[in-house]
Amino acid sequence: MWKKTRDFLDKLTPAQVITSYYLLAVTVSVLLLRLPGVHKPGVKVDFIDTVFTAISAVSVTGLSVVNISETYSVFGYFVIMAILQFGGVGIMAIGTFFWMILGRKIGLRSRKLIMVDHNQFALSGLVHLIREIIKIIFLIELIGALVLGFHFLNYYPSWEDAMLHGLFASISATTNGGMDITGNSLVPYAGDYFVQLINIILITLGAIGFPVLIEVKQYLFRKREEQEIPFRFTLFTKLTTLTFAGLLVVGTIIILVFEFQHYLKGLTWHKSFFYAFFQSATTRSGGLSTMDVSDFSMPTLLVMSLMMFIGASPSSVGGGIRTTTFALNILFVYHFAKGKMDVKIFNRELHHNDIMKSLVITILATIMCFTSVVLISITDSQHELIEIIFEVCSAFGTTGLSMGITAELSDFGKCILMILMFIGRIGLTSFLFIIGGKEQKANYHYPKERVIIG
Amino acid sequence: MWKKTRDFLDKLTPAQVITSYYLLAVTVSVLLLRLPGVHKPGVKVDFIDTVFTAISAVSVTGLSVVNISETYSVFGYFVIMAILQFGGVGIMAIGTFFWMILGRKIGLRSRKLIMVDHNQFALSGLVHLIREIIKIIFLIELIGALVLGFHFLNYYPSWEDAMLHGLFASISATTNGGMDITGNSLVPYAGDYFVQLINIILITLGAIGFPVLIEVKQYLFRKREEQEIPFRFTLFTKLTTLTFAGLLVVGTIIILVFEFQHYLKGLTWHKSFFYAFFQSATTRSGGLSTMDVSDFSMPTLLVMSLMMFIGASPSSVGGGIRTTTFALNILFVYHFAKGKMDVKIFNRELHHNDIMKSLVITILATIMCFTSVVLISITDSQHELIEIIFEVCSAFGTTGLSMGITAELSDFGKCILMILMFIGRIGLTSFLFIIGGKEQKANYHYPKERVIIG
Ligand SMILES: [K+]
Ligand SMILES: [K+]
Repeated sequence: MWKKTRDFLDKLTPAQVITSYYLLAVTVSVLLLRLPGVHKPGVKVDFIDTVFTAISAVSVTGLSVVNISETYSVFGYFVIMAILQFGGVGIMAIGTFFWMILGRKIGLRSRKLIMVDHNQFALSGLVHLIREIIKIIFLIELIGALVLGFHFLNYYPSWEDAMLHGLFASISATTNGGMDITGNSLVPYAGDYFVQLINIILITLGAIGFPVLIEVKQYLFRKREEQEIPFRFTLFTKLTTLTFAGLLVVGTIIILVFEFQHYLKGLTWHKSFFYAFFQSATTRSGGLSTMDVSDFSMPTLLVMSLMMFIGASPSSVGGGIRTTTFALNILFVYHFAKGKMDVKIFNRELHHNDIMKSLVITILATIMCFTSVVLISITDSQHELIEIIFEVCSAFGTTGLSMGITAELSDFGKCILMILMFIGRIGLTSFLFIIGGKEQKANYHYPKERVIIG
Repeated sequence: MWKKTRDFLDKLTPAQVITSYYLLAVTVSVLLLRLPGVHKPGVKVDFIDTVFTAISAVSVTGLSVVNISETYSVFGYFVIMAILQFGGVGIMAIGTFFWMILGRKIGLRSRKLIMVDHNQFALSGLVHLIREIIKIIFLIELIGALVLGFHFLNYYPSWEDAMLHGLFASISATTNGGMDITGNSLVPYAGDYFVQLINIILITLGAIGFPVLIEVKQYLFRKREEQEIPFRFTLFTKLTTLTFAGLLVVGTIIILVFEFQHYLKGLTWHKSFFYAFFQSATTRSGGLSTMDVSDFSMPTLLVMSLMMFIGASPSSVGGGIRTTTFALNILFVYHFAKGKMDVKIFNRELHHNDIMKSLVITILATIMCFTSVVLISITDSQHELIEIIFEVCSAFGTTGLSMGITAELSDFGKCILMILMFIGRIGLTSFLFIIGGKEQKANYHYPKERVIIG
């Protein structure tokens, strides 16, 4: 019996493992969210809304059909924090693990051997990695909770309230859960730049990708004798960090320019800057906001939709097509327009397979989101087109920003968003391998370096 | 002097020749449209609107800032018909010529020799090809004009009026010009299925791509002894024809389904069918319509925008990313999802370079249209998002269907549409080579067959 189970597990592809984990997590979450005492006294939640909340929390999206602070009890808050942990950190851990196993420069055959026969090794690797990830993320969350908690003593009368808000805010930001118990996201702290900065840092640490965190840790804690030789960050880390920073800066500038004469009109320069800066940072995958995004003008909403569609780094708590996919697209289009077929960056050359993959993922994601918009515009025709586009991109990017229509959507519309959150979270690459049912045939005969996509 | 000019011409890339021709045609058209007697007595047209009309006619888009029947005299009608000819047929001829020269299975070196030293050969080939194209298109137009002209005797009291309407309608349909002198597109013939069928046939013959017409002609007029061996159509012809037919059928079905309970409610089945069929066919690049498209519901308008974005065949009178680009995208995404990197179809394998090209063109076109929508939504914020999306896709696909906002756009908005019509018409591939300034490095060492893209 145990042998059979192990044989079965051995045959699972990474995509199948991630999907199974996701579906199991959703099931457990639904059960947890139906426990007695989870809701505030007298509150009833429809089953589909519980499922939606569970999927939204497991995929760390944060789109909400209910107001958390009005619906759930303090016990419920803790349940949601737990779900955010195993949704955000769990899937990140599994994704990172498989990337590290598959990313080693070993032949397909020996890799298969490692995966199938030596699964003791793989399992111990997984355990070690998950422990590492949990250690780092918990440390970040703990520091975040303490910093925010002490600061919140300025806002909340009781010690417990301040710490609860600090803890929830820290976990929601670090896992990019995007949920809130203030009842109105971070709008109460719209004038508090300290809270916003801490949130941006926590969101970024969660969304930048776990391989980056590991490498930075290795860089900071390397032994003295190693400090002689220059530390080499991987191409993945350089590319995803640069793209991340680029999107943050460009997003901030675009919001400032587009809203200068509109939402930001008459505000001080620092208030304008922080509105633009925070709303740019949160599109990566955070989903928290310091204002009602539906007050932005059409051009800004379109650009924010695109930025949510791009999403966060691979092997992170975020979704979307991923920063590296976007970077490879831009790099290849640029090189192609100049007549070159090979993409060189940071003294490395990109794999053609990776480029193809990034192009396909982008096109497929575009088709998927377009189809979703069309379908929702059939059943929920009372809503504006931009509202539907924004909500669809938010779900696919597992961002969770909302123009406020999610709760009003038909059950069909909610189902579409749930599917998008699922695919956005596990990544289109994984999703493709579930459908295709086949493992990726990696190509090892180029002297190039691999980059994670989608 | 003549030597110098020839040397200069020899050095031009195909993309530069097409662009030069386009810009020359626009300049001549602007001059022609400012001739005395072109306008109806007492009508004044702004210069930017003349430029817009010229570009719209040269790119055979048909988007209009003025009502042709109210603005231009009969002399003006003939000027417009002439512009549609050298816009539609001229660019198609040059594009086809270069494809045929570059498509021959000869080494890069001997091809360069042909292009540079033996340009006598190339020139005579060009002259022959242009003559061939003009012969076929004129024949189609003549038959169309006579058939429509005689039929229009039912509508117009005088012989001259009927023939003028027949000629203009035939040229507008065959060149996919999409312009009308009825004052209201084909709406007056919304109940006349014969006129609609003839228009669909003419539009299709113009938009299906000239290589297809040549091959069909070769097939029909081959000698008796050749009829023994089965005729082999090229992969390009098979692919573009199948895609064309597929889009027509799928478009018709989608419009029928989406508008069944909306625009088509209460209509007879044949009237419903023809509304759906004609509006599906016209999105390829025709631009004529039998109803006010803005009466369609949101989902239909979104799908029509996508279909216009896809556009017509390469080497045709149409625009967009082109049918083959779309087909290669879908084929590769499908194969990729099944874990295969090679695309086999019709017993042929596609070039990897072509696939890359098709993916890049699609992504670049998407970025371009998205940026255009954002920019227009800044300057023309009084319009609905779907109206802007629809008009942008219509311009890029050189389709010319309109939700009616083109005439109301700001000068900036009109400029964006003019740029889109230009790029859509010459094709993104050509456009890229203008920017990059380099010729495509074709890859000849695969035993595969080439397909034209974008
Ligand atoms: K989120
Ligand atoms: K047209």
